[in-house]
Amino acid sequence: MDNTSGYDIKYLFEPRSIAVIGASQDKKKIGYAVFNNIISGGYKGKVFPVSPKGGEIDGHRIYTDILEIDDNIDCVSIVIPAHLVKDTVSKCAQKKIKFIQIITSGFSEVGNVREEKEIARIARESGTRIVGPNMFGLYSSVASLNSTFSASTINPGHVAILTQSGALGIAMIAKTAVANMGLAAIISIGNKCDVDEADLLEYLIGNDNTKVIFMYIEGVKKGERLTETLKVATGKKPVIVIKSGKSKRGARAAASHTGSLAGSDEIFDAVMKQCGVLRAECLEDAFNWCKFMISSPAPPNYNSVIVTNGGGVGVMATDACEKYGVSLYDNQAVLKSLYEDVTPSFGSTKNPIDLTGTAGANEYTRALAVTAESKEIGSTIGLYCETAIFDSGNLSQMIKDTYTKHHQNGKSISYALIGGKQVESAIDSLIVDRIPVFNDVEQAVSCIGAFYRYHKYLDEASHKIDEYEIDATLINKIIDGAANDGRTFLLANEGAAIMRAANIAIPQSKIARNINEAVKYASEIGYPVVMKVVSKDILHKSDAGGVMLDLDDEKEVVVGYEAIMHNCRKYKTNAVIEGIEISEMVKKGVELIVGARRDPSFGPVVMCGLGGIYVEVMKDISFRALPINRDIALSMLEEIRSYPLLLGARGEEKKDIESVIDTIIKIGSIIKNCERITDIEINPVVVYEIQNGIKAVDARILISKPKEDVQ
Amino acid sequence: MDNTSGYDIKYLFEPRSIAVIGASQDKKKIGYAVFNNIISGGYKGKVFPVSPKGGEIDGHRIYTDILEIDDNIDCVSIVIPAHLVKDTVSKCAQKKIKFIQIITSGFSEVGNVREEKEIARIARESGTRIVGPNMFGLYSSVASLNSTFSASTINPGHVAILTQSGALGIAMIAKTAVANMGLAAIISIGNKCDVDEADLLEYLIGNDNTKVIFMYIEGVKKGERLTETLKVATGKKPVIVIKSGKSKRGARAAASHTGSLAGSDEIFDAVMKQCGVLRAECLEDAFNWCKFMISSPAPPNYNSVIVTNGGGVGVMATDACEKYGVSLYDNQAVLKSLYEDVTPSFGSTKNPIDLTGTAGANEYTRALAVTAESKEIGSTIGLYCETAIFDSGNLSQMIKDTYTKHHQNGKSISYALIGGKQVESAIDSLIVDRIPVFNDVEQAVSCIGAFYRYHKYLDEASHKIDEYEIDATLINKIIDGAANDGRTFLLANEGAAIMRAANIAIPQSKIARNINEAVKYASEIGYPVVMKVVSKDILHKSDAGGVMLDLDDEKEVVVGYEAIMHNCRKYKTNAVIEGIEISEMVKKGVELIVGARRDPSFGPVVMCGLGGIYVEVMKDISFRALPINRDIALSMLEEIRSYPLLLGARGEEKKDIESVIDTIIKIGSIIKNCERITDIEINPVVVYEIQNGIKAVDARILISKPKEDVQ
Repeated sequence: MDNTSGYDIKYLFEPRSIAVIGASQDKKKIGYAVFNNIISGGYKGKVFPVSPKGGEIDGHRIYTDILEIDDNIDCVSIVIPAHLVKDTVSKCAQKKIKFIQIITSGFSEVGNVREEKEIARIARESGTRIVGPNMFGLYSSVASLNSTFSASTINPGHVAILTQSGALGIAMIAKTAVANMGLAAIISIGNKCDVDEADLLEYLIGNDNTKVIFMYIEGVKKGERLTETLKVATGKKPVIVIKSGKSKRGARAAASHTGSLAGSDEIFDAVMKQCGVLRAECLEDAFNWCKFMISSPAPPNYNSVIVTNGGGVGVMATDACEKYGVSLYDNQAVLKSLYEDVTPSFGSTKNPIDLTGTAGANEYTRALAVTAESKEIGSTIGLYCETAIFDSGNLSQMIKDTYTKHHQNGKSISYALIGGKQVESAIDSLIVDRIPVFNDVEQAVSCIGAFYRYHKYLDEASHKIDEYEIDATLINKIIDGAANDGRTFLLANEGAAIMRAANIAIPQSKIARNINEAVKYASEIGYPVVMKVVSKDILHKSDAGGVMLDLDDEKEVVVGYEAIMHNCRKYKTNAVIEGIEISEMVKKGVELIVGARRDPSFGPVVMCGLGGIYVEVMKDISFRALPINRDIALSMLEEIRSYPLLLGARGEEKKDIESVIDTIIKIGSIIKNCERITDIEINPVVVYEIQNGIKAVDARILISKPKEDVQ
Repeated sequence: MDNTSGYDIKYLFEPRSIAVIGASQDKKKIGYAVFNNIISGGYKGKVFPVSPKGGEIDGHRIYTDILEIDDNIDCVSIVIPAHLVKDTVSKCAQKKIKFIQIITSGFSEVGNVREEKEIARIARESGTRIVGPNMFGLYSSVASLNSTFSASTINPGHVAILTQSGALGIAMIAKTAVANMGLAAIISIGNKCDVDEADLLEYLIGNDNTKVIFMYIEGVKKGERLTETLKVATGKKPVIVIKSGKSKRGARAAASHTGSLAGSDEIFDAVMKQCGVLRAECLEDAFNWCKFMISSPAPPNYNSVIVTNGGGVGVMATDACEKYGVSLYDNQAVLKSLYEDVTPSFGSTKNPIDLTGTAGANEYTRALAVTAESKEIGSTIGLYCETAIFDSGNLSQMIKDTYTKHHQNGKSISYALIGGKQVESAIDSLIVDRIPVFNDVEQAVSCIGAFYRYHKYLDEASHKIDEYEIDATLINKIIDGAANDGRTFLLANEGAAIMRAANIAIPQSKIARNINEAVKYASEIGYPVVMKVVSKDILHKSDAGGVMLDLDDEKEVVVGYEAIMHNCRKYKTNAVIEGIEISEMVKKGVELIVGARRDPSFGPVVMCGLGGIYVEVMKDISFRALPINRDIALSMLEEIRSYPLLLGARGEEKKDIESVIDTIIKIGSIIKNCERITDIEINPVVVYEIQNGIKAVDARILISKPKEDVQ
C-alpha cells in the first residue's frame, strides 16, 4: 500500500492553519518556543495553541483540546510528554488532520518501538500523516512558517535542508544564520515512523524557492523509492548528502541513536552516484557546496583557469583540481593570447595565471574579465594571498564586481582568500551579499569539482533500461527443487543450469555415469578436460581426491576416472556418487567477478570487479542498483582499478567488454525476475579477447529461506 | 663538500647585528618595511641601514656602502634590484658576513639560473651563506627579530614555519596573527641557492621556543640530507609538512614557479612517513594540527572517547575516527561504570558518550572529568551542538576548565563546536587563550589522529640498520661487462648472476650446448622444465619460437630442443645461438614485485608490492628510502593492500614473509653498494608457504650510462 496516495505534501510545508498541542506560556519550554517562532516568524495562516491548562498565550486563546477547535486544521505540532502522544494522535486522526509533526521524543530511538508503530497505525487508518517522532519542527519560507524550537532567526533563501538528526539540525540553523545562508526550508525527519525523505523530496522538487537540497542521513529504510525520487530531484536541482555511520562502528552508533539500520556504505555510495547525488564528507563541505551552487549558472564547458597572486597557492590549487576532478584549460597558445595583456612579464599565463604579488584590484579585475568573456573558459578559481599592497575595501568590491560579471556571462567563479584581518573583513562584507568566498584553496576547488560532477551527471544521465529476457520459469523450477530439499544454496549443476537459462556462457560439461561415457564426453568436449566427482555427500571435492585437472587424452581420462572413484569411496564409504563431471579445461583470460544481491535498503544491486583470488583482498569492485542499462554497466567496469586489464594492458589485445556488459545485464535480469534469489556470485568470469566472449566458471547462488517463499 | 662545515646556523636566527641593504625612507617600499619591522619588532642587536643615497631613516644613519661599516656584521638583508645583487654579495663576502637573506627576486624562478649560481659561488668561496634569493626575510622569537616585509604583527609563540613560497608565507603570517597562533620563527627559503630546509631544521631542532615545526615544500633538492635531519627533528618535536606539486600538472606549475623539480609524490610520501613527518593536505589541516600539538601532552595510551550532546555529530565523529585512525575505547563494561553517573538514562555510555541535548556546562564538566581522571582513556573528542539551553559564556569557561584539567592529567582533548553566534563568540574568546577549538567534527578528529600517528611513530621508530653482505666485486665485474658492451641494461643471465651474488633464490637453470646436455640438465633440475633459447641476436624469444614450457620427460626435452633450434634458425638465419637454457618450472605461489631505484631527490629507495600482471594496473606498491631494517621491510608489506595474500587469505597457509623481507634487504644492499645500478625490478618474486622461501623469476637491472661511470 502506498501511504502517499491521496495526500498532498504541500500542506505540511504550506498549511493554512496549524495547532500547537503543548503550547506553553513558560518561556523556557519547547512548547513556548515553537508557538513563539510561528507567531514571530510572520506565519500568515491561523494558529491554535492547545494545552489542557487553557488560558491565553501572547493574546491567543489556548484551547484545552484539539477537538474543541471548530476550524479545519491542516497541520498539528505535538510537544507533550511521550506517554500522552498516542491519545492525542487519536484525536488528531478523528479530526482528520492532514499532517502531524511529533516533536516529542522517547520512542523507537530509545527502544520504544511498539508505541511508535501503534501511533503510526492509528494515524494511517484515518489518513493522517506523521513526521517524526523525535523531530524539531520545520521551517518553510513560502509559508513564512517556523514551527521549530530553534532560538536562532531563520533567514529566507534557497537552500532546503532535510536532517535525520534533530540536534544537528538546530545547530545547522544557527550555523546558517551566521553564514547568512538563506533557507528555503529545513525539516528534521526524526524516527521516520511514516513520512520519510522521499515524501519530503517530492515537495522540494516542485518548490521554486529551493535551488539546492542538502540531506543529512543516518540510515535509509525504503531505498528503492528514495532512489527513484532522488533521480527526479537531481534532474531539477543539485542534491547534496551527508551519510554518517559509514564506518562499522559509526553504523553501530547511528543504529543506537535513531534506530535505523545504517546499510553497507559502498552500496549507498554507488547508488548516490548513480542518482547524481553529491556526497559530502563533512558539514563544512556540504555548506560550502550549497552556498556555491545556489546561484552558479550551468557551466558552458568544463575548462577552468586558476588566477592567483601567489605561486604557492597556485600550485596547491592545481593539486586540488586533480583531486576534485576539475580540468584546467591547457591550450598554452590560447592562454597566452587571452591573458598576456593582463599578466606582468615576470608572471605566468600558463594556468595557473600568476598575476604575482604586485597585483591589485585593477589587475585582478582585468584578468578575471578575460575569463568571464572568453568562450574557451568555463570557470575561474580566484586565489588571493594577503599582501601589503592590496587593501580589503578594494578586495571585496573587486570580488563583488568580478563575481557579478562572471554570472552575467554564465560563468562560475570560486574564490579562496588566504590571509589575516584584511581577508576576514573582506569575507565578512561578502557574506552580507551572499557571495561565497573561502579561506582555503581546497574548499574553493572542491565547490567547482562538486558542481561539475553534478553537471556532468546531467549531461550523461539516461533513464533507459536494458534488460535481458531470461527463462524465469526454468529458473523458478530449479529454485523449487532446492527449496524442496530445504537448501538455501544451489548446487554447482543448478547454478550452471541457471546460467544456461540466462544464456550466460559456461564451460561445456557433461556428467558421465561410467568410464565409457567419460571417454566419449571428453572427446566431444575436446582435450584437455577436467574431471570432478558429483555427489551430494561430498562437499569438499578436492579434499576427497575427487578432482583431476588437465587430462590430456583418453588414457588419462580412464586412469583419472578410476582414481576419483577409488579416492572418494575411501574418503566416504557410503557416499552416493552420481557420476563424474567431465568439463572443458577453461583457457586463461582476465578473471572478473560478476554478481548481484538483494540489498536490504536498496533492493537488487549488481556488482562486478577483479575476480579470482584477489576479490576479498583488493576489493576492486563496483556496484549499481537496478534498473541499469549498458552505459551504466560500462561505467561499472570503468570504475574498477583493474579496468586497464580489459582494455589490454601490457600490449595485450583488448578484451570482450561487450560480453561482460551482457553478463552484468543478464545477472541483473535474473535477480530482478527471480525474487527468491538473494545472492549470485560468478567467480571467475573469464574474459577473452574481443569477440571471443566470456566463460562463467563458477556460479554460487543463494536463495531465501523456504519458509519466506510465497509460491 | 659540505657547505655547512664551520658555520653556525644560530647567527641566521640570532644575529648580534644586521644590515639592511636597500633600506628606504619611502614607506611604500619593501626596503622600508624590512627596516621598520626590525626596529619596531624590538630587535636588541645592532641595525645598519645601507643605501647609496645615504641620509637617515627613523633616526638611524644610512650607510652608503656595506664596506663603510666598521662593526662586525652577522647578517645582511638584501632588498635591492636584481641586477645589483651580485656586486653587493661580493662586498658581503669580502666583509665575511655570516648570513645573507636575499629578498630580491628575479633569479632562477624566472629562468635566471646562471646569475643565481654565480652569486652562490661567490658567497661560498668566502664562507658566507645565503638564504634565498626570492625570500621574504625571517622572524625569530628568541632574537625578537622580524626582518620580513610583512604588514602584520607577529606574535611570539611555539610554532616554527619554513616556507618555500614567499607570498604564501606573508599570507600565513597574517593568518597566524588572526588565529593568535604564536610563532617561534618563520622563514621563507625561496630559491634555495645555498641554505636549504635541512640547514634551517638544524637550528629549529635545538630551539627551545619551537614546539612544532611546519614546512611548506614545493620541491626537494638534497633529499638524503633532508631525510636524515627530519629523523632527528621528529625525535624531538612534531614536524608537519605540506608538499604541493603532487599532481603532474601541479608539479609542472611548481617547477615554473620556483625552478625546483617536484619529484615523484609516492616516494616523497613514503619517505615522510618513514621519518615520522605528518603530511597535511591543506593549510587548514596544517594550522589546526600545529595549534593542537603545541601544548598537548604525550598520550598515556591511544584510547579515545567521544563526548557529545548530539547523536548525529557523535556518529559523524565515529566515522571520522575510523578515517583518521583514532581508536575508540570499546570495553562497554568499563565505559558503563565510568560514565553511568554522568550520563542521563536516555543518553548513552557506549562511546560516543551521549549526554543528550539537555547537557549544560555542569554535565559536560562532570563527564569530561571522568576522561581526565580515568587511566583507561587517553584522550577526549568533545562535541557540542548549539542548543537553546547552553549559553556561550558557560561554554567557553567550561572548555577552558576541562582543557586545563585534561592537560594537568597528561591527557589531550579536542573540541568541535557546531552552531552559530553563541559558538562563534565562544571560539573567539578561546582563541585569546590559545585553546584550540574547531567548528567541524572532521577537524577535531583529524588533530588527534595526526598527533597519535606521530606518537605511534615515536613508539616504534628504530634507527637500527639491516644490511646483507653481497659480493660487490662480482656484481661490479658483471656491470663492467655490460658497460663495455655499451649497454645500460643487463641481460637475463647477468641479472641471474647478480641475484646469486646477493644470495637471492632464483629458479635452477643451466645452459645446454647440445641435446645430451639438455637431457642431463633437465634430469638434474627435475621435471617439468622450461627451455629457452640463449642468443644475443634474438631479443623476443617467444616470437621466435624459442621458448617451450612444461616439458615433462626426456622425450619432450629432445623434441623441444630440436623444435627451438629449428624455429630460431628459421626466425633469424644468421643468429648466433649460444645454447638453450634448461630451467626449473616454477611452482605457483603469491607473485610479488621487489625492486629498488635511485631517486633523484632521495637517493636509493626500495619498493615492493603485488606482482605479476597487476603491477601497473593495481599500483599496489610501497616504497622506503635506505637505510632500512627488517621491521621497516615488514611495514612495507603490511602497507600493501594485497598483504592478506601473504598472511594466507582464503584458508591458505601463511607465506614465507621472512624470505620476502630478506629479499628486500638484499636488493637494498645491492643498490646501496653498487652505485652504477639505477634500477632493479624482480617481477615476479614467487613466494611460497612459510619456510619454503621465494624464487626470483625475472630480474631486470638498469645501470647508469657508461660515460657517467666513475671507475
